[in-house]
Amino acid sequence: MTAEAAPAAAGFASLDALVRPRSVAVIGASDEPARIGGRPIAYMKERGFAGDLWPVNPRRATVQGLTAYASVEALPAAPDVAIIAVPAEQVIPTLDSLGRKGCRAVIVFSAGFAEMDAAGEAQQEKLAAVARGHGIRMLGPNCLGLFNDSIRFYGTFTASFEKGFPIAGRIGIASQSGAYGTHVFSAALDRGLGAPVVITTGNEAEVALGDVIGWMAQAPEVEVICAYAEGIRESTQFIAALDLARRNRKPIVMMKVGRSQLGGAAAKSHTASIAGDDTVTQAVLEEFGVVRARTTEEMLDIAYAATKRIYPARNTLGVLTVSGGAGVLISDAAEQAGVAMPPMPEAAQERLRSLVPFCAPRNPVDCTAQVTNNLPLISEFAESVARDGGYASILSFWSQTAAGRSVGPSLQEQMRKVRAAFPDRLWVMSMLAPNKVREYEGDGWVCFEDPSRAVNAIAAMGVFGAAFARAEQPAAEVPLPRVALPEATPSEAVAKALLAEAGVPAVPEHACSDSEAAVMAAEKIGYPVVLKILSPDILHKSEIGGVLLDVTNADAVKHGFATLLERARHHAPAARIEGVLVAKQIKGAVEMALGVFRDPVFGPVAMVGLGGIFIEVLKDVSFRRCPFDAAEAERMIRSLKGFPLLDGARGRPKADVAALAGALSALSAFAAAAGPRLASIDVNPMLVLPEGQGCYAADAVIELDGGGH
Amino acid sequence: MTAEAAPAAAGFASLDALVRPRSVAVIGASDEPARIGGRPIAYMKERGFAGDLWPVNPRRATVQGLTAYASVEALPAAPDVAIIAVPAEQVIPTLDSLGRKGCRAVIVFSAGFAEMDAAGEAQQEKLAAVARGHGIRMLGPNCLGLFNDSIRFYGTFTASFEKGFPIAGRIGIASQSGAYGTHVFSAALDRGLGAPVVITTGNEAEVALGDVIGWMAQAPEVEVICAYAEGIRESTQFIAALDLARRNRKPIVMMKVGRSQLGGAAAKSHTASIAGDDTVTQAVLEEFGVVRARTTEEMLDIAYAATKRIYPARNTLGVLTVSGGAGVLISDAAEQAGVAMPPMPEAAQERLRSLVPFCAPRNPVDCTAQVTNNLPLISEFAESVARDGGYASILSFWSQTAAGRSVGPSLQEQMRKVRAAFPDRLWVMSMLAPNKVREYEGDGWVCFEDPSRAVNAIAAMGVFGAAFARAEQPAAEVPLPRVALPEATPSEAVAKALLAEAGVPAVPEHACSDSEAAVMAAEKIGYPVVLKILSPDILHKSEIGGVLLDVTNADAVKHGFATLLERARHHAPAARIEGVLVAKQIKGAVEMALGVFRDPVFGPVAMVGLGGIFIEVLKDVSFRRCPFDAAEAERMIRSLKGFPLLDGARGRPKADVAALAGALSALSAFAAAAGPRLASIDVNPMLVLPEGQGCYAADAVIELDGGGH
Repeated sequence: MTAEAAPAAAGFASLDALVRPRSVAVIGASDEPARIGGRPIAYMKERGFAGDLWPVNPRRATVQGLTAYASVEALPAAPDVAIIAVPAEQVIPTLDSLGRKGCRAVIVFSAGFAEMDAAGEAQQEKLAAVARGHGIRMLGPNCLGLFNDSIRFYGTFTASFEKGFPIAGRIGIASQSGAYGTHVFSAALDRGLGAPVVITTGNEAEVALGDVIGWMAQAPEVEVICAYAEGIRESTQFIAALDLARRNRKPIVMMKVGRSQLGGAAAKSHTASIAGDDTVTQAVLEEFGVVRARTTEEMLDIAYAATKRIYPARNTLGVLTVSGGAGVLISDAAEQAGVAMPPMPEAAQERLRSLVPFCAPRNPVDCTAQVTNNLPLISEFAESVARDGGYASILSFWSQTAAGRSVGPSLQEQMRKVRAAFPDRLWVMSMLAPNKVREYEGDGWVCFEDPSRAVNAIAAMGVFGAAFARAEQPAAEVPLPRVALPEATPSEAVAKALLAEAGVPAVPEHACSDSEAAVMAAEKIGYPVVLKILSPDILHKSEIGGVLLDVTNADAVKHGFATLLERARHHAPAARIEGVLVAKQIKGAVEMALGVFRDPVFGPVAMVGLGGIFIEVLKDVSFRRCPFDAAEAERMIRSLKGFPLLDGARGRPKADVAALAGALSALSAFAAAAGPRLASIDVNPMLVLPEGQGCYAADAVIELDGGGH
Repeated sequence: MTAEAAPAAAGFASLDALVRPRSVAVIGASDEPARIGGRPIAYMKERGFAGDLWPVNPRRATVQGLTAYASVEALPAAPDVAIIAVPAEQVIPTLDSLGRKGCRAVIVFSAGFAEMDAAGEAQQEKLAAVARGHGIRMLGPNCLGLFNDSIRFYGTFTASFEKGFPIAGRIGIASQSGAYGTHVFSAALDRGLGAPVVITTGNEAEVALGDVIGWMAQAPEVEVICAYAEGIRESTQFIAALDLARRNRKPIVMMKVGRSQLGGAAAKSHTASIAGDDTVTQAVLEEFGVVRARTTEEMLDIAYAATKRIYPARNTLGVLTVSGGAGVLISDAAEQAGVAMPPMPEAAQERLRSLVPFCAPRNPVDCTAQVTNNLPLISEFAESVARDGGYASILSFWSQTAAGRSVGPSLQEQMRKVRAAFPDRLWVMSMLAPNKVREYEGDGWVCFEDPSRAVNAIAAMGVFGAAFARAEQPAAEVPLPRVALPEATPSEAVAKALLAEAGVPAVPEHACSDSEAAVMAAEKIGYPVVLKILSPDILHKSEIGGVLLDVTNADAVKHGFATLLERARHHAPAARIEGVLVAKQIKGAVEMALGVFRDPVFGPVAMVGLGGIFIEVLKDVSFRRCPFDAAEAERMIRSLKGFPLLDGARGRPKADVAALAGALSALSAFAAAAGPRLASIDVNPMLVLPEGQGCYAADAVIELDGGGH
């Protein structure tokens, strides 16, 4: 991935003219500061944009005190970026003029395109073609624009600034929804969080969310990315953006709402119909360590904690609390969020017990309210948690004690010192002392009133850290097989053979026309075997006694071969008999289902799940973009809720997870190599034997586009 | 339940002396306002407690300016309540003196009891016995006490008041943890929520959480109950308290943390081992419509919304938004929280579309930012949502628009009027206008910055409303059967017979010693039947061909009878043959598991789940206290994640859910009637046939206490 991503990263900088312009034209500029065409000018004048600001208005000599230009052609030069705030029908000619003038970036406020009707959609396609023709990067149409307060550039008509302009900070907001993007900005502002770069993409005729995230991933203005998406329309830049952000250690917290528009896309195959909703997007986000926020509040909690830029690759949580009850609550929350809380070393526990006899020093470390009567103990406990516990993250719960007249100042002083002595840790404070929050933050603390919210934010830092650490390891190359798909949809036998060649083993079986061949086949496969009559005219073999189980030696094979032929002649005298199928007898297997389908945005996506009801009723499945290695395949398998069934639950032997992971990875490589003609693959059931005995596909269907049904 | 609950309610008022005393003695009173024995006096002096306040201190004439008494005996009268703040070893003699003086309520601050060690536990038992001997209601020991600001009574040594004393309000906090209870109080205070009654129960030697909740359920001081529990130790008062609160329409929001101490209790039976953790407590809370909060923040969100006392019995949510993105986000949150968002009537949608052409009026009703250019439209939209939509709850999302200089005042004015015109609705505002919150609250709004938190709170009001509505319906009496348990653990056959008599049908089968009897049995059962050889010496019947399926008429029964006897003689000549078992042949059944176990706190609890892996791996089960009616049983069944398997998933016929619900309810009645000797029942598998065809237990185990294994 590293090799391909570099040029993509360079591509992201092509948004510089859009986000960091030195000259700005406003087409449709208004003298009224409150009108859509007036707001960008008013904001930039108020904030002191240092570049050139050129209003274009054919009916006025000046706009808001600035020299106005009658037309694009009349502009003194090509602006770095042009803001287009004209009626829909004038947008395309305006864009064309701008292109001819040499402008290479535009922000289109105007609505009346794809969001409206089919005619609008057609207009938007024309618009995008004009932009592409001129090599213009275009934000919108129907977008609220963007702002980058680091250079005081305000290419937006949002009304969000009545409460104030952005404060300093390193949070960037990338949003498909203008209203929601500025909502997050405004909520951040209320919390004292600086988000000086906000980019909203609107209809995404040209610049899409991935471009914006990618730009932020390489821009020094932004260290933490908040993204809001309703649907991902484009994969190449999106994937490259996530990859770049990960490599540059910039965390992304994303809110992805609604049913993906992909959900409804032709549910051609079984696997695709299971995918539904936004499972594929979810799988992609997980792959790159993007944390999905469930609420705006959670998004900002995580972004806030991330401003400390401490992302533990292996997160552990130490908890220091004055309340045993809160300690239990925090432990519950940590378990839920998947953050480990290893116990303190025994020796340290003993020492703390000698300091406060009734303390509970395991972890959570409950120092009890005793310490409020003997304040220097606070340092002792905090230091021990940091030094002896060695936790990557430390959550300190003081409730209203922190606000106390007597305890408060001493607590703050001691905690400041201990924190300063271990600056590499993520120090989080949970307290009920609203008027102390700014002071603690000044000391370097992350502060949350609610301990559960604190735990969620801490967990997210660990997810980021683990993803960043993975990015630093050279990715295992997944070798792609050579795949030659047949012309038409292959039969089951051909499908199995194709997959087996690629490393997805099928149940070993041989069609044999005489009993000698049957014995040879059985010896090759290994006993016991199953014998089945082979005839295109006998569909229900077992009804005529056409299946023999537990055939354990050569004599039995010979005997069985004769028996089956006799039964067939007797019960179905007219049937064409081709011989006997000799197959490995599989016993005690766990039935899994593997699959692949082509996502319209992200390409081939592989799936694994437990067979039958697990998939269809419980949706207990895991998805990943193809290809991926066996280690990743095993992570997918282990993430299944039903994984215990493979891991020795109910007294079963452990299943051969390694073989299953190998087959799943091989399937993903096959799908990646097969090219766009591959529509879907279903391997169901995939029979997984006990450890060391492998796994075998008992059925396989490969569907091709245009393969017909 | 109604009949029994009345006396329990009277019982709760016996805490009046504890929570609403007219005279208070403080044993171990200190002249130092900051010391544990000094704080209650200092607080009551500062707040102006109107009753008598009697410090007891043998070494001083006055305490904090009040006349001190040398001993309990020297008190001018028996105090309504005595606060005991003396060293552990003096607690019992002090309590005894108080009892002899005529005191009937005490609060024991002193620690050094069950929280310490076995000796402390023994001391605590003695203490409880002394209290009971004198008829004293005792809070603690090892508790932080309680306060009731409505009468300025402060029987607590909490240090929480440095930030301020309680403000007016109707929230009561009942907590097993003192530190956590006051944390919630203090967090509420920071949010402007009044919680003037806080009661913490400490070691619960006598008064337990249920008593406290029960007192709040009947006390006018409290309208909304916030409870915090680590484990429920006592069921009678707890259940009566939940029932009373529900009947008095007082919502309870509870935080229950940690693994219940019951989880570890002897996992004697299969069913009990599945229960684990706190599933039983959870089932009890659900039964009474108690909402479980996951975080302190959520607890206070719900308590805050509940202060409006609008609890829709059938909750529906209408959403009015200026942001389409937020609308999608809110819809996602509502689906997750289980709140229905039915669409607006078509005619209303059309009218709104005629007002704002590009609005999305379905629900969420997205009025778009257009309305900010034509402010009177706000009323039109809000009124339509309330009147035409008829929603019980209305969430209005305005983001930072509400703070705008131009839009803000008009928005507030219009929304105030519309809200006032529909005062029976739950009106919730989501906006980013911190300085406007108090004004909106004054207008009657519930305000949340985060729309997801708003949705969760709205959902909780519906849960309360539905529970309150259920309480108003006369509970269906579940008739209890007469159950005569055998002396020893019964055999499978006896267990099945006992259960069948109680209404839990078993697979019909008859042991027949001759072929005439077999034919009669088959005719009675109905064809097809299964024939099985009956012999105590033949364990694996099918291995000797001892099972015949699909026996469809009398001749076949006769013939089969002879065949089985002949095979038995041939393959197992020494075996004792008792005849043939004729059983109904069950085909196409869904396998369920039913069970009962005796919870040490809540008594017999019934369980239902889908068979096999569903239960053991996925824990997809539902629990309920016994007995319950068939309607409740059906609710349990329908709450299973795997319910689609019974409801026609994967092309199956629908299963006979009504029969299953009947059997489950009958099982619960059997368990309730069986008395404490019943340890557990496992009915597994319970075979559920297609609709109209019933369900049949294929196996049943009844375990008795002392019944041996």
